[in-house]
Amino acid sequence: MKKTNFLLFLLLVGFLTQRSIWAQSDLLGFSKEMAAKQLELESKFDSQLDAKNLDAWTKLMASHPHHVGSPWGKKNAEFMVEQFKKWGFDASIEEYQVLFPTPKVRIVEMLEPTSFKASLSEPPVKGDPATAQLDEMLPPYNAFSIDGDVTAELVYVNFGVPADYEELEKMGIDVKGKIVIAKYYGSWRGIKPKVAAEHGAIGCIIYSDPKEDGYYQGDVYPEGAYKLSTGVQRGSVLDMPLFPGDPLTPGYGATADAERIDQEDATNMTKIPVLPISYKDAQPLLAALKGPVAPSNWRGALPITYHIGPGPAKVRLKLEFDWQLTPAYNVVAKMKGSTYPDEWVIRGNHHDAWVHGARDPISGMVALMEEARAVGELAKTGWKPKRTLVYCAWDAEEPALLGSTEWAEHHKDELQKKAVVYINTDGNGRGFLGASGSHTLEKYLDQVSRSVTDPQKGISVFDRRKAAALVQGAPAYPSYQMGAPGAGSDYTPFVHHLGVPIINLGFGGEGSGGEYHTNFDTYNHYTKYIDPGFTYGVTLAQVAGRLSLRMANAEILPFDFKHFYKTVDGYAKEVMKLADDQRAEVERENMLINEGMYDAASDPKKQHKIPSPKVEVPFFNFSPIQNALAELEKSAAAYAAAMAASKLSEQEKAKLNQMLMDMESKLIRDHGLPRRPWYKHHIYAPGFYTGYGVKTFPGVREAIEQGDYKEAQEQILILGEVLDGFVEGVKEAVSVLKKSRP
Amino acid sequence: MKKTNFLLFLLLVGFLTQRSIWAQSDLLGFSKEMAAKQLELESKFDSQLDAKNLDAWTKLMASHPHHVGSPWGKKNAEFMVEQFKKWGFDASIEEYQVLFPTPKVRIVEMLEPTSFKASLSEPPVKGDPATAQLDEMLPPYNAFSIDGDVTAELVYVNFGVPADYEELEKMGIDVKGKIVIAKYYGSWRGIKPKVAAEHGAIGCIIYSDPKEDGYYQGDVYPEGAYKLSTGVQRGSVLDMPLFPGDPLTPGYGATADAERIDQEDATNMTKIPVLPISYKDAQPLLAALKGPVAPSNWRGALPITYHIGPGPAKVRLKLEFDWQLTPAYNVVAKMKGSTYPDEWVIRGNHHDAWVHGARDPISGMVALMEEARAVGELAKTGWKPKRTLVYCAWDAEEPALLGSTEWAEHHKDELQKKAVVYINTDGNGRGFLGASGSHTLEKYLDQVSRSVTDPQKGISVFDRRKAAALVQGAPAYPSYQMGAPGAGSDYTPFVHHLGVPIINLGFGGEGSGGEYHTNFDTYNHYTKYIDPGFTYGVTLAQVAGRLSLRMANAEILPFDFKHFYKTVDGYAKEVMKLADDQRAEVERENMLINEGMYDAASDPKKQHKIPSPKVEVPFFNFSPIQNALAELEKSAAAYAAAMAASKLSEQEKAKLNQMLMDMESKLIRDHGLPRRPWYKHHIYAPGFYTGYGVKTFPGVREAIEQGDYKEAQEQILILGEVLDGFVEGVKEAVSVLKKSRP
Repeated sequence: MKKTNFLLFLLLVGFLTQRSIWAQSDLLGFSKEMAAKQLELESKFDSQLDAKNLDAWTKLMASHPHHVGSPWGKKNAEFMVEQFKKWGFDASIEEYQVLFPTPKVRIVEMLEPTSFKASLSEPPVKGDPATAQLDEMLPPYNAFSIDGDVTAELVYVNFGVPADYEELEKMGIDVKGKIVIAKYYGSWRGIKPKVAAEHGAIGCIIYSDPKEDGYYQGDVYPEGAYKLSTGVQRGSVLDMPLFPGDPLTPGYGATADAERIDQEDATNMTKIPVLPISYKDAQPLLAALKGPVAPSNWRGALPITYHIGPGPAKVRLKLEFDWQLTPAYNVVAKMKGSTYPDEWVIRGNHHDAWVHGARDPISGMVALMEEARAVGELAKTGWKPKRTLVYCAWDAEEPALLGSTEWAEHHKDELQKKAVVYINTDGNGRGFLGASGSHTLEKYLDQVSRSVTDPQKGISVFDRRKAAALVQGAPAYPSYQMGAPGAGSDYTPFVHHLGVPIINLGFGGEGSGGEYHTNFDTYNHYTKYIDPGFTYGVTLAQVAGRLSLRMANAEILPFDFKHFYKTVDGYAKEVMKLADDQRAEVERENMLINEGMYDAASDPKKQHKIPSPKVEVPFFNFSPIQNALAELEKSAAAYAAAMAASKLSEQEKAKLNQMLMDMESKLIRDHGLPRRPWYKHHIYAPGFYTGYGVKTFPGVREAIEQGDYKEAQEQILILGEVLDGFVEGVKEAVSVLKKSRP
Repeated sequence: MKKTNFLLFLLLVGFLTQRSIWAQSDLLGFSKEMAAKQLELESKFDSQLDAKNLDAWTKLMASHPHHVGSPWGKKNAEFMVEQFKKWGFDASIEEYQVLFPTPKVRIVEMLEPTSFKASLSEPPVKGDPATAQLDEMLPPYNAFSIDGDVTAELVYVNFGVPADYEELEKMGIDVKGKIVIAKYYGSWRGIKPKVAAEHGAIGCIIYSDPKEDGYYQGDVYPEGAYKLSTGVQRGSVLDMPLFPGDPLTPGYGATADAERIDQEDATNMTKIPVLPISYKDAQPLLAALKGPVAPSNWRGALPITYHIGPGPAKVRLKLEFDWQLTPAYNVVAKMKGSTYPDEWVIRGNHHDAWVHGARDPISGMVALMEEARAVGELAKTGWKPKRTLVYCAWDAEEPALLGSTEWAEHHKDELQKKAVVYINTDGNGRGFLGASGSHTLEKYLDQVSRSVTDPQKGISVFDRRKAAALVQGAPAYPSYQMGAPGAGSDYTPFVHHLGVPIINLGFGGEGSGGEYHTNFDTYNHYTKYIDPGFTYGVTLAQVAGRLSLRMANAEILPFDFKHFYKTVDGYAKEVMKLADDQRAEVERENMLINEGMYDAASDPKKQHKIPSPKVEVPFFNFSPIQNALAELEKSAAAYAAAMAASKLSEQEKAKLNQMLMDMESKLIRDHGLPRRPWYKHHIYAPGFYTGYGVKTFPGVREAIEQGDYKEAQEQILILGEVLDGFVEGVKEAVSVLKKSRP
């Protein structure tokens, strides 16, 4: 059908069906009558929300360090179960036994050219007594570093990402047998030891340069929100882009009696020892390096000349951990659905922290709790959600998404049958609504974002986000734009392993700081610098609460395929451009190499190495993707049109909802992505070399980026099939809708 | 004529005239026979050059501070006269009496919130005894700051350029009645106090942040080439974009008996006191500021959080100068031309320095001297240049191009009659040939750059420049690309005031440092870090020597109009795009303001002010420029074609050469540019708000940039007339060539 005819057809459909119940409701998934009821419900929900609760719970739950396995962590879990029960939920603790290493020995010392021993400690700060609970907290370390005792020359590797090693190669610097020191940021931290080991390094130190979240960004704690010289970012370095969760129970739940693989067989531990340090500890090491001066985009904000080395700084890194199975306490609280009890709307946030975690995760946790409490209050008035609401407070997110992943793996079959959506938060800040997730949910989120008021400006959350986008240079912002989901929080197993649609959201962009995963993420820091008065905590409860309630009550699940098509079509254009750009770049690079331009332009007084020519990039057959997308465009429009014209019986609604629930799962394939079968989604995945950072069309994109052009073509075929399958699903839904016509 | 026909015509001309003497020489301006002789001469010239001379002269001339008026400065001038005479030149000192302020009182102190007194000194460095001659040198200051004694709160203004004040306005910060502190770089230094005063500031401190040329860039002196914590960049702050030279004799020579205006009537002094300081002195002042944190692109490399203020830092700045008339000793050495004695090829470099000036200016001065010595040796064998060679060593360049400007103004009539070209250098470094100048000289420079060998790589200077351009991302580099001439060295009066074509050149890009205008620009620093062995000094003598010798000996002056057309046509496209971009930007900006987007996106916890809507940018009538350029394209091609077909008599050659000598002067207009009549060139000028940095099509471009759209249209008309006049000149030259056809 030609475009003009097609448009005519749509107009006609619209005209003929203007009496359909759907055409007259602005609320996706609701008839006019039900939409009015839903909005009334949401207004009641809002009136229940009270910032004082968020304040009190944060004060309580963040008053002591509460990592997985800590006494305070257990207390928090028990406290929450009690609350959920009080609010009318069927709540309990689901316990898993997960591997959780904690430090026994941590040594970083410089042996040459001078001697220096790193303090590796975070001394308390005056005026914030919580920071003095040193005996309750885990010292700074990276979880899932292996044990080790290595001594070698030091090399500065910038952020330690693959591009940095290409640069090092051009400078003729090899890290083989060396210890590398990398800055935080630029990638998820676990990428740094992974790439260092791939290049032959034997140890890795990660430090927080003041450029990224220290004095360069703003005044440091307690005068300001940023990282003081002794602040150290803790965090996991398990190779989560391979798979997250308990390394000893890959792909299945870490129940007490589960069979476990040997620790030596776990494939996602680091290959070399790795430890994070403060910039106070890093400065003497960096200042002792000689060799080439680091390129300008490598330099940080310390008052030194950044040299790369290797050496003369010679460093010893010694690490030993206590490798214990530790109980993780997930809190799961259910409120049964009145109409569709076996359709679950899941809402979660983790409760474990690296230290006090006032922001990460408690600020998100307490918003979830207030949301659940308000839902409980609504339920006390006789209202019930149509679908079952499941509120989760995950334990052990910090070490490797352990609580959520084990639960998702453990309940895999049930979840793939029952889960409608998983809505995640993980802390909260002040400013603008940020969200990533399944693109079929974009319109639904867009509608919610327009119905919640920003507490600072009195305009909608959407309008504020739009203003920021326009001021930052976006040409237009017609609807809320969700990012694609990467990894880094508890939604990961749901979307990437199970194929459950997700949204991950939170506020931010104003009131940033350097407290992340340090001893300084305290109640005092949070209420002073991040979200004073918890106004955005309440706003988050409003947004997430609407998401939960609308999904729970919708007559037809509020999925939309036109947004999905538009976004995914954009990804297709991106990867085709990537191939073209890479082809041009390789051609040009090879010309520069072959014609001696690098040599002619190089400074003979500086170390350098001419790179080898690269393999030329072939032209790919992208037609399987293009054809699938052309079909998707048509069927997505047909779905919207048929929906507008439909008049479904209750039975038909139930049938259609079942089909819609299945749509995201059509984007996964059991064989998963190359070299990481745990990741089954073919539209998005965390980057193999970016970690949290998402790669869309990951199979195709990463194959091109890594220069594996045979695999790229194979992945194009697979992706074409995946998209074809999705299109079939949409078409089936359309046929259900068409049959329903009066 | 259509393009294809035109090409056919050119081919035809080429075929018919292949016996012309010009068609067979690759050397612009030389017949085949003369080209061979010229190349032989250049080869003899090369063989005379000896790096040892450059070394010995640098050691001698840079052994003591030698600013204008200093004993060592006079000695250097006398030494050079003696040398030039020895080499066979008619050499003498031409003396001018110029206003040259030197400091009597310099005080910078912080009164609140703590007290601190800036040291304002550059203590000696171990291992470099020259740096200990403190009693011979001028302390750090900015020449032509007014006297003053001001006390006020301090405001950090980044580089202190107009865009920075726009940013401050958006933050709601006013500098009225305040003292500003600005970083060096980002503009010529004189712009900083000028713009500060325009915004109501009462004092200005300029400091060298380690980000730009201190430890951030590399190891500091004496371990490396960069600026140590006590290094201070001296320099002029006279408003040279208004006019350079002696402020008391504007537009005429500052001879001993010249009439002088009152100092109070000089229009180009600063309006507020200004002083440069080191980063050691600046850090306590900057660290004491509060108020908003500076935007990320404003922050330097000091280990502090950069705040903007105003205050609480309260600072006193007190300055008093000794305003003396001081003798400036220009050395002028002539070798009379055998054929065209009244056509002068002028070659210059200044000899005064702020302190020792091993690099600035001596490294360029000694290359010029060696060039002259080699020319002298050639002359001793009986050879004579066809045109008169004039070698100049200017005094008092540093305070305000005093020596060269007074000489150019003093000899204005003679120079406008006799000057063929002015070839300038001003110090030298290692690496790549950089050049700016009149675009009619691009092909001539291109040919020279291909005939000189790079001392490090053994390829031509052109090929090395090309390699760098390609590696840095240029899509192609078919011929040497000269920049347009700004200001900042002694070529300024020649091109901008007299309309004499110029080239300004030097090597650089490798071996940079932070010694510029400090006590650390010494023989030791230069030979260790900048050009060890003076190999690029010899290469500069080869390039500049060829430029001098070819221009002196050419049968037809080597001007080319096709390169000129291409470049100038590019400028036209640029200003048309500027107008379009500015129109779109203003529209967008006004939309953001009027629709409340700035307010909606702003952080209520941060200070800000919504800007006022701007005047919309009209569409301009660019046709006068476009039509002139269309004609220029044709006539430039016709000139090249006619030249290839010509067979000129000696008389015709002389006539044509006279016409060619006049071409650059067709680009000036006696009324000059708006508000600065001293600047008469309409194709290029130093930017009114950038200083050294060039603005092409300055009348049109700056009117658009400043939002004066009426003036923009007026300037388009003037520029159209200027270009029409140039086209007429080319056409007249073509007709001389056509008449000459055999």
